[in-house]
Amino acid sequence: MKDQDGNEPPGAVSTERARRTDPDRTDGPGPDGPGPDRTGRTRTGPDRTGPDRTDPDQTDGPGRTGPDGPGPERTDGRTDGPGRTGPDRTGPERTDGRSAAGLRRAHAMASVKKVLVYGGKGALGSTCVKAFKAKSWEADVNVLVRPADSWEEQLAAVLEGVEGALAGEKLDAIFCVAGGWAGGSAKAKAMVKNCDLMWKQSVWSSAISAHLASRVLREGGLLQLTGAQPALGPTPGMMGYGMAKAAVHQLVRSLGAEESGLPPQVTALAILPVTLDTPMNRKFMPDADHTTWTPMEYVAGLFGKWAEGDERPKTGSLVQLITKDSKTELVNAD
Amino acid sequence: MKDQDGNEPPGAVSTERARRTDPDRTDGPGPDGPGPDRTGRTRTGPDRTGPDRTDPDQTDGPGRTGPDGPGPERTDGRTDGPGRTGPDRTGPERTDGRSAAGLRRAHAMASVKKVLVYGGKGALGSTCVKAFKAKSWEADVNVLVRPADSWEEQLAAVLEGVEGALAGEKLDAIFCVAGGWAGGSAKAKAMVKNCDLMWKQSVWSSAISAHLASRVLREGGLLQLTGAQPALGPTPGMMGYGMAKAAVHQLVRSLGAEESGLPPQVTALAILPVTLDTPMNRKFMPDADHTTWTPMEYVAGLFGKWAEGDERPKTGSLVQLITKDSKTELVNAD
Repeated sequence: MKDQDGNEPPGAVSTERARRTDPDRTDGPGPDGPGPDRTGRTRTGPDRTGPDRTDPDQTDGPGRTGPDGPGPERTDGRTDGPGRTGPDRTGPERTDGRSAAGLRRAHAMASVKKVLVYGGKGALGSTCVKAFKAKSWEADVNVLVRPADSWEEQLAAVLEGVEGALAGEKLDAIFCVAGGWAGGSAKAKAMVKNCDLMWKQSVWSSAISAHLASRVLREGGLLQLTGAQPALGPTPGMMGYGMAKAAVHQLVRSLGAEESGLPPQVTALAILPVTLDTPMNRKFMPDADHTTWTPMEYVAGLFGKWAEGDERPKTGSLVQLITKDSKTELVNAD
Repeated sequence: MKDQDGNEPPGAVSTERARRTDPDRTDGPGPDGPGPDRTGRTRTGPDRTGPDRTDPDQTDGPGRTGPDGPGPERTDGRTDGPGRTGPDRTGPERTDGRSAAGLRRAHAMASVKKVLVYGGKGALGSTCVKAFKAKSWEADVNVLVRPADSWEEQLAAVLEGVEGALAGEKLDAIFCVAGGWAGGSAKAKAMVKNCDLMWKQSVWSSAISAHLASRVLREGGLLQLTGAQPALGPTPGMMGYGMAKAAVHQLVRSLGAEESGLPPQVTALAILPVTLDTPMNRKFMPDADHTTWTPMEYVAGLFGKWAEGDERPKTGSLVQLITKDSKTELVNAD
């Protein structure tokens, strides 16, 4: 925060970080079944939103980021902090020269999209990048966000990186799948610490994506944020998580309203998963009923469809992902 | 945020600050009419939540905290930053020795309460402190929170100050009326900056109050937080404000649920004002219909009543303050 003269103390904090996607990953989209038990790269993304791993009596521990916390499965040997996020942008594509009327339909018919995945290194983000690459939507530009930077500094880095790479062109879609999870009730010693972590992982990334969308998203484009189905109600065992996701939900409602500041005809929406079927969630909850978990490949497929204008929900939608017997149903929250 | 080893960069930010209440203020509670046009001390508190001063096209400026921003009316000559908050705690009182069963009723009948007002220097906070003093609920202990401190550091300061002063005794009620207001749509240059400010002013104080309540609030006590009626819906012209208040609303829902971590039988609730009748709001919106603004003295009277157990809403309530023709109606949000 700056004072009235615009001065700001150095060293505000964050753990967001982006890195280049791994070009040799080959798992493609597969909308219905659970994905392969892939290893590594699971530390960001909205892996887990269900209440069953919460511990309301938790009284200590560093951050306790649960399934999104650092695990031993990293494949690249790096050991940086939790919550790696940051946009992985696909390269520029040809434009079709059309605008305004018929724009959305024209773009819907174009086969190549220019998209950005914020949090593209997480379990869900990397799955999305792979799926988009499989559609020939390239993903080879990255923007690094320094963990020690403040919210505003991260915004500046993202704007500079993305706008520099776009060179005046626009994005078709922005997917923000950065996030994390931490438990704790009001009496948890780490309550405030976890609130802080949740805010940085979910809300910093979402607000930066929203402002970025106001600047670089094309008319009729798509902005997707990531909420959480449980945060539609009380979350006493994960106070900070619920607050952060409720803030994201409200942001989506605002973005979907008139005079939101987004380009014309943009669709802003959030997915609200219950539990995503990620390797880390499998590891931490091996005995859970995995047929109620939503496969990441399903989500990636959904995003691809929405980016193409196919079955895209209306702007402002909070789309709950309700999975039962390995089938996922989309249920708009009121 | 700390890394996995618990290390934390120095200098995380905040503008919260508390100061001693002014002992010569004499305006007392008056539940129904608009209060006198008092000057000064209006920079914190949920002064203004209505949408009519928003400017969705705002593109710059330092924080633009509107009616809660620093004004020329300060009476003490100090010029510190925006968002002064911090608990003003009343002194210790006699205990009645009873506990558990009948506790709430016993306390309801006691005439002297031990309460804390977080943000006791703001327009609403200072009005509350005055009203409580008029009931012989003393208010002469302050805890300072340093603007440059992080969320966790502010928590530590509040815990140390309050628990030190209490010396093992418990509080009857915690009122958190710290807050602020800033506008801006997604495209406002200051969007992220204002989100950050709103979070610090409303959510840091609320989360700290919640954790504090888990430690020092008596069984059957009252925890009041401050939401905002407009944040029940979209707030496209004040994105950060809406997100922060939505987070507070969700926190109250969680605090009202089972296993929230609060002491038994505590009532956790929020007031959701539309516009409070503060001097700063009068100054910035001189031509508004002031008969739809909620008088601060009404709110202070409400708090006093609730602290005494009189007409206290059930825990988890989001209590909208709807004022029309200078009469305020309480409407619970679903």
